[in-house]
Parts: sequence; structure tokens; C-alpha cells
Amino acid sequence: MDRRSFIKKAGAAGLGAGAAALATPAISQGNQTWRMVTTWPKNFPGLGVGAQRLADRITAASGGRLTIQVYAAGELVPPLQALDAVIDGSAEMSHGAAYYWQNKSAGLSFFTGVPYGMTSRELTAWVRYLGGQEIWDEIYDQFGVQGFLSGDTGTQAGGWFRNELTGLDSIQGVRFRTPGMGGQVWEKLGASVTNLAAGEIFQALQSGTLDAAEFVGPYNDLALGFYQVCKNYYFPSFVEPGLATELVVDKAKYQALPSDLQAIIRDCCQAEYDAVAADFAANDPRALKTLVEEHGVQVRRFPEEILEAGAKASKELLQTLLESSDPLTKKTAESFVSALNIVRQKTEGTDVPFLQAREKYFHL
Amino acid sequence: MDRRSFIKKAGAAGLGAGAAALATPAISQGNQTWRMVTTWPKNFPGLGVGAQRLADRITAASGGRLTIQVYAAGELVPPLQALDAVIDGSAEMSHGAAYYWQNKSAGLSFFTGVPYGMTSRELTAWVRYLGGQEIWDEIYDQFGVQGFLSGDTGTQAGGWFRNELTGLDSIQGVRFRTPGMGGQVWEKLGASVTNLAAGEIFQALQSGTLDAAEFVGPYNDLALGFYQVCKNYYFPSFVEPGLATELVVDKAKYQALPSDLQAIIRDCCQAEYDAVAADFAANDPRALKTLVEEHGVQVRRFPEEILEAGAKASKELLQTLLESSDPLTKKTAESFVSALNIVRQKTEGTDVPFLQAREKYFHL
Repeated sequence: MDRRSFIKKAGAAGLGAGAAALATPAISQGNQTWRMVTTWPKNFPGLGVGAQRLADRITAASGGRLTIQVYAAGELVPPLQALDAVIDGSAEMSHGAAYYWQNKSAGLSFFTGVPYGMTSRELTAWVRYLGGQEIWDEIYDQFGVQGFLSGDTGTQAGGWFRNELTGLDSIQGVRFRTPGMGGQVWEKLGASVTNLAAGEIFQALQSGTLDAAEFVGPYNDLALGFYQVCKNYYFPSFVEPGLATELVVDKAKYQALPSDLQAIIRDCCQAEYDAVAADFAANDPRALKTLVEEHGVQVRRFPEEILEAGAKASKELLQTLLESSDPLTKKTAESFVSALNIVRQKTEGTDVPFLQAREKYFHL
Repeated sequence: MDRRSFIKKAGAAGLGAGAAALATPAISQGNQTWRMVTTWPKNFPGLGVGAQRLADRITAASGGRLTIQVYAAGELVPPLQALDAVIDGSAEMSHGAAYYWQNKSAGLSFFTGVPYGMTSRELTAWVRYLGGQEIWDEIYDQFGVQGFLSGDTGTQAGGWFRNELTGLDSIQGVRFRTPGMGGQVWEKLGASVTNLAAGEIFQALQSGTLDAAEFVGPYNDLALGFYQVCKNYYFPSFVEPGLATELVVDKAKYQALPSDLQAIIRDCCQAEYDAVAADFAANDPRALKTLVEEHGVQVRRFPEEILEAGAKASKELLQTLLESSDPLTKKTAESFVSALNIVRQKTEGTDVPFLQAREKYFHL
């Protein structure tokens, strides 16, 4: 979508809380309609599109017995109240990212992605085969909800910088829009970190209030127009090696469903995890090509000393979670680190050497 | 599973063709039972397990309206007749790998994996978003069947070698078990390539008939016991950067299903694609740990000159497909190469630098 319509929609996201009439779940001839609130603007590339496609999948696979009605950010509740809407019963489902709710439990960050953490494939290995889902369930049980992975951006871009970076010196005091734990890492490196909603970033860059901004990756960033102000586009993000989305459902209502509908929700979420990741894998590089060839963007890599200092800062941050006084946060962090130490052997020891050899020797 | 029971089962796979009574699809109260023949031994790690889990998913999500009965390799038809069984109507579904049928259309290899080709994430990006599925449909339409991706091993191991490899010299005349296009590449490099069924490899290594063997990766190879003969385990495979499995269904029967059951088959296959890949991502490294720590296996990387010569040989092989006189094979190869040239930018330009930085700087 173009920047103007995106910003209009993203802007609207902040407003309409409560404005939309609260729909009541319709039950007729055994058919139900469930409300899915999301944290994404309507048709937001990759993520909002994935939420809608997940809803459509469930509706189709259930033959309409469970019809999912999607509400974009702000249509029913503001984006950052999506989980609360499920908890308080004003929606049956929310689609967003678990790390938005880290104030409820710091361990939730791990199910989206943490600095220097897991890639998308590593995350799904942890969640599905190395104990991740069980711990996630324990956290969400406290709130009467159930979470499922529902998509992943893959490794993100590191950010847009007005000026080229030569080392750690270049980022001292740089006013950088980057949220969450990634923002905490950048702050430790000396940047002056702020958070702004998607729709506000472009103007802040243009007016000079910001020197740099990080959002998702080429597929999303192209639509936001950052290239008009910043020409230095840094890769990879070391603070967001992946960003997994989640579908959260009201657990009691989920368990009250017949078992075939429960299976359909589960299977459709897992299918969407693959679909969203494939969408980004196909469309990030296409968007980057447009940015480089049509908008003169310079693709750059972070200097080694930034990568190294970033790793040190990320370790410190992770250490605080490993030592958390909250038992569930500590347990999540320990499970995550233990799983990372298993799965990284294959990604670093098998995937990377293959990709390096292909990059070096195989061009058609 | 242990080697003995695996080999027993794999051995059985070659025999029982036609021995099992041909079940007739049961239809009662609108419920149907479909037969899924597979190319895998029962409970074969990752792949056979994935076939069974896919069947169970479809059965559960359809509330038993479509019950899938799985037949391991050889139970209903021999493994390499699985696709023919669907074509001739003696099964409704087959679970295997598209490259087994490259004699029907050389283009089918691309939907499993080709030397120096795509990783699992790249493949799903091509198939789902860059035109791959449409071409695959065109190929399978000729046989009245429909294919869906249903799993992926991820990047495989390069193989077990009795002697350490120091360069191209070391592989001249080496009697190496490695099938398909990968085998053709190794032959070009000077190896003496043979193919043997899974259950026959161990003995051939032990008796000295083989000097080396490649199968899948640690998760499968551990069960086959190759480590008892060869201690040099090479990574990564450059001829199998991924191996995707497929579910093939009788297209007319598929299209005659109500649309919700069609959606369930589609969604469950896509969910399984993620599940199988996650299973290998979690369990390959665990199996490798056992091989190294309990069986004294040496993990090694191929010398650069083998990687380089392998790339040259792979290019030559791919070139013959790009110049194929069969229009559909040519079209598949062109679409694959065009998609590879898009998606590799993200894997090589974003994923690899992140993983390298993590390997270098981030250990917990």
C-alpha cells in the first residue's frame, strides 16, 4: 500500500477504541462468529494480511461453522489493548505479537523474539519440540488464554540511518526509533532511543526529530517511505533475528469448541506460520530491489564493533531475565537459552556454510 | 528407533507389494476413509512420522469425515510405486518426495530440492509466492493428481566417509552411495556413485563394498548406524540444501470433496511443512551430539575445492534442465532460477550475516 493510505490507516488505529459497535457472537444453526482483534493496520503487508488470511482459513476449513471477523487495530479496541480484549471477553481472539504484553510477564518476549536470539526456524523448533509451547501455556494460563504461533517476519532489517555508521562513535546520542528489548540494547550502546507509532515515524525523520528509525524490513518499510529521508539501510537486525506473531484465543471458549474446530484453529495457525514467513522471504528481497534501484537506497552492514557491543549488551539484558525473581520468566529464559544452544548447531554449522558456499561459487 | 528394528522395517518395505488386502474406501454417513501410501518405512524419523501426523491431522480436523489410513512403504505398494498407486486409483493419496518421479517429468526434482538449490524457507517462498505451485500443478495435471508441500528436512548432511577428504583427489573412485541429481554431481567430481536402499547401506559399508554413504542427516543417520564404520561425517550437503516432501492426491477425488475438506487437506499439509522442518531443526543437532559424544564421530567440512567443483558440476546439470526440450521442464527450471535469484538476497544478505555475528559474539 502507498504511504499516504498506510499512514491514514495507522493513524486511525490510535483512535476508534470503543467507537465500533461491540458485535455479539452470532450463533445460528450451530454456527458461530468470533471476533479477532489485531494489533495491525488493515492490510498491513505480511502481518495484517496474515491475520486476515488466518481468519479466512479458519472460516473456510470449518465450512463456516466458525466464522472469524477481523478487526484491524483501533476498529474495536486500540492495538495495545488487543490481549485485554480477549481477557475481558470483548473479543474471542487477538492477533499480534507476544512481546507487546511483556508488562504482564517478561517471559512473553521470548515467544516473539529477543536480541541475538532465534531465527524463525529455530523458534518453531523450540516452541514445538523443545518445550517452548508448554511454558508459553503456563504463562498464558494465568490470564485464561491460549497462544499459538501464527507468523514470522524472518530476520529483520537493522534500521534506516541518516548518516553512515563507521563504528560505535557514530551512534552516540543518535535519536533512534526502535522499541522493546531491541531499544534497550541500542540504549546501552549509546543511542538515544524513542518509540513512536508507525504512522508518526516518517514525519519525525523528515522534521529532524529523529536521526534513525527501525521498523520491520523492506516489505513494510517501503510503504512507510523512510527512504525519502534516510539513504543508509543497515542489515541485519541483531536485535530482531525474527519476529513471531501469535494468535491468542480465550481458552475456555476454545476448549468448549468441538475437537475438530480446535484442531482447525491449531492447524491453520501453524499453516500461517509458514505462509507469513514465506511471504516475507519472497517479498522482502523484491521490496529491497525497488528501494535500491528506484530510490537510491544504500544497503550497508553494521560495523563489527557495533555487532560485538550489541552482543554484549544483549547478553546483559538476557542475564537479567535468567536471574528474574519471577519463576516463570526465569524458567522461560532458561528453556530458551538451552534450546538455542541446541538448535544453533544446525543453523550455524550446516545452513550457514551451505549458504556461504552458494554465495561464493554458485551463480546462474 | 534402533538400527535393527529400522532395518527390519526398511527391508519389509521392499517386499509386501500387493500382500496387504486392498482396502476399499469406506463411505458411511458421509464419512470416507482414504488410503495414503508412503515411500517411507513406518515411523521413519521426521519423514514417516510426518506422514502419519499429517494423516492424523486431517482425520482430526475433519472430525472423522475424512479418515486417512497410512500404509508404510511396501504395505500396499512398493515405495517407488506410490505415485502410480494414486494415478491408477489403488490409493487416494501418496506421501513421498517429488524427485522420485523425475522419470515422469524432470521438472519435478525442483519441488524436492536440487544441488546448490534452495533451502526450505526459500522453497516455500518460491512455491507459495513466486509461481512454483502453479507450475507444479501444470506438471501434475498431466497425471490427474495434485501436489502439496508436506515437510522438509532442512539442509542435509554431506555424507559419511571412511577416510578424511583433503581435496578433489580424495574422492576419485570413492564408492559413494548418493542417489538422484546429487549423485550425478558427485559422479562429475570423480566419485563412483551407486544407489542402494536404506536398509542395505550399512552392510555395504561394513563389507567394504562402499567407501562412503549419504542418506539424510543426523536424525535419520544415527538410527542406521553408519558411525560404526565411518567416523568422518561431512557437512553441509551442497547437493541437498533441503529435501521437501509432498502429499499427492487424486485430483478428481480432491475436487469432489466439499470445500471445507479441501481446505483442511491444504492447511494440514502447510502446517506439516512447518512441523517436519521444526522436527529436524530440533532433532538433527541432538542426534549429532549423540554421534559425537557417544560414538566418537568427527564432524568435518568439505574442502573448498570440493565445494567449488561441486558448484560447477551443479551448474552444468541445471543448465541441461534450463535447455530441456520438454517445455514444462524448461519452464520449471527457469522459474526456479528466477525465484532463487530473488530469495537468496535475503538468506545470504540478511540471515547469514546475523548468524555469523551470533556465532562470533554471542554465547551463553
